Amino acid sequence: MEKKIRVVQFGLGPIGIETAKVIDKKNRFELVGGIDIDPDKAGRDLGEVCGLGKTLGRPVSGDADALLHELKPDVVLHTTSSFLDKVEDQLLTCIRAGAHVVSSTEELLYPFERDADFSARIDAAARRHNVAVVGTGVNPGFAMDILPLTLTGVCTEVKSVRIERVSNASERRQPLQKKVGAGMSEAEFRELAARGGIGHIGLVESLLAVAAGLDWKPDAVEEKLEPILAEKDIHTDYFHVRPGQVAGIHHTCTATIGGKTVIDLDLKMYLDARDPHDSVFIEGTPPLSMRIDGGIFGDTATVAALVNTAARIHTAVPGLRTMLDLTVPRAVS
Amino acid sequence: MEKKIRVVQFGLGPIGIETAKVIDKKNRFELVGGIDIDPDKAGRDLGEVCGLGKTLGRPVSGDADALLHELKPDVVLHTTSSFLDKVEDQLLTCIRAGAHVVSSTEELLYPFERDADFSARIDAAARRHNVAVVGTGVNPGFAMDILPLTLTGVCTEVKSVRIERVSNASERRQPLQKKVGAGMSEAEFRELAARGGIGHIGLVESLLAVAAGLDWKPDAVEEKLEPILAEKDIHTDYFHVRPGQVAGIHHTCTATIGGKTVIDLDLKMYLDARDPHDSVFIEGTPPLSMRIDGGIFGDTATVAALVNTAARIHTAVPGLRTMLDLTVPRAVS
Repeated sequence: MEKKIRVVQFGLGPIGIETAKVIDKKNRFELVGGIDIDPDKAGRDLGEVCGLGKTLGRPVSGDADALLHELKPDVVLHTTSSFLDKVEDQLLTCIRAGAHVVSSTEELLYPFERDADFSARIDAAARRHNVAVVGTGVNPGFAMDILPLTLTGVCTEVKSVRIERVSNASERRQPLQKKVGAGMSEAEFRELAARGGIGHIGLVESLLAVAAGLDWKPDAVEEKLEPILAEKDIHTDYFHVRPGQVAGIHHTCTATIGGKTVIDLDLKMYLDARDPHDSVFIEGTPPLSMRIDGGIFGDTATVAALVNTAARIHTAVPGLRTMLDLTVPRAVS
Repeated sequence: MEKKIRVVQFGLGPIGIETAKVIDKKNRFELVGGIDIDPDKAGRDLGEVCGLGKTLGRPVSGDADALLHELKPDVVLHTTSSFLDKVEDQLLTCIRAGAHVVSSTEELLYPFERDADFSARIDAAARRHNVAVVGTGVNPGFAMDILPLTLTGVCTEVKSVRIERVSNASERRQPLQKKVGAGMSEAEFRELAARGGIGHIGLVESLLAVAAGLDWKPDAVEEKLEPILAEKDIHTDYFHVRPGQVAGIHHTCTATIGGKTVIDLDLKMYLDARDPHDSVFIEGTPPLSMRIDGGIFGDTATVAALVNTAARIHTAVPGLRTMLDLTVPRAVS
């Protein structure tokens, strides 16, 4: 039997707890520790914090450095923040402890253009410690980048790629409903949008990953964010949204080369969304039109992307990597 | 600029010629030579044989060993036969010349169970010469194995996978129409089927690749082949099929574990096929239902899979590999 992959869960918010639960159930992994600075969690047994229905005899630690050097895990599953500047020290702590890192940090999916210096520092540290660091999830990480790229693998030529995702936020957890602006006034939304305080994080990273995968150098990349307003009363478990209030976001990102739109990402996440789906249209040889009715359910799929990547990251060349450098995605048993 | 990948095309049948044409057009590659034993091709200029509209100053050679040792290509694109026992010497010749091999040999997609000794010999030789060998194509190699596996990458649990492909043989080249039995009587078809002389090659390999990717050990694998009979007159560019004659094949392959069907491959290739498509249904968490309307056009897609894999094979660990060991598929520019 293959040796189990020893995993520490770094960050025990809703996604981190779900990830730890799945890791605990899989034969391929051993959940050896958990990290969270929340004083309501640090010090308590990891099994209890994660609701595993059992204790693991391993207290959650607020001291990442000490825990990682003591446990020396093979992989850290990192789920603390969406932003590069919030995670650099955490990633370096994992790397210095000799652990591969699989992170849900959206900006880490393709960080090279947003912050080249950060990327160089993480890459150098990871090479020095002989580990790989990668960002993943369902979006960014799959639906609007890796899956469309995979489809181009059977094209001799690609002229353009259009990717749509319509996600029904009514079915998602409360923080996601809040994140898409549920219940805001249009004015509040636009004010927040103007200072970058709302919108899907990682859309431009998905676009850059697609461009990099196809070896395309866009002349221009443009993002647009608009509110989707409720047309009638919407009741969810967490919100009551009135007609005219914000039901969610319509976020797009396009890349042009020589005046032609070559990559077009179109994301809608809103309450009571009509016809949720993921689709990809490739203008190429052969042309391809793919559709996933209902769409890929985001909360579960992000957990899955993290767990399944943790089973493959040891095969990657050390350094700061992207999902494009890893082997074909697949479910670990 | 990255150094161009130097490619020799081994086998100049219809697929090999199309592959050579695409290689010749792509910046990433240099087409340095061609191999074919056909006396109508050997000795003539490669550009002329491939219909490139120019000469390359490189005659097609019938002597693979001499040509490969002289040219020392980075990659050989190998398109000569569907069967392991027909290609072993050819593969060893490529390996000994120090070239990675990307092959359209259907049985090579997942050869370990069909012929463990062959696999061990190829693997040992490839390791010794520090090159990788992989089989690919659209089917096997993508539509019924790599694409479905990729979709499981966002599942925390997979209970079963059903994969359908309906391909309209009327749109395909003449040899494919012949291969699916177009115009045979039902009796001829059944007699040929009974001795393994007809049917899609590689269906069981796709199934074994899916099982391996999910780390599943099926209790039983069962293949079934039935003719699809014409209901009315069918005219193609190559055949006239009368009602009751064979229009194509319905080929299935299933794997069971504990009495439950866990992998179910269902392939129909026939003339004037209704509703051609590729679809994948994953019973799991989350469940997933993917569909490509019209299906992936096979002739072009196989050429693309070969060419696009040739751009990534140098990143693989030396040895006999499968598409699962390679990085995420994508179109090379």
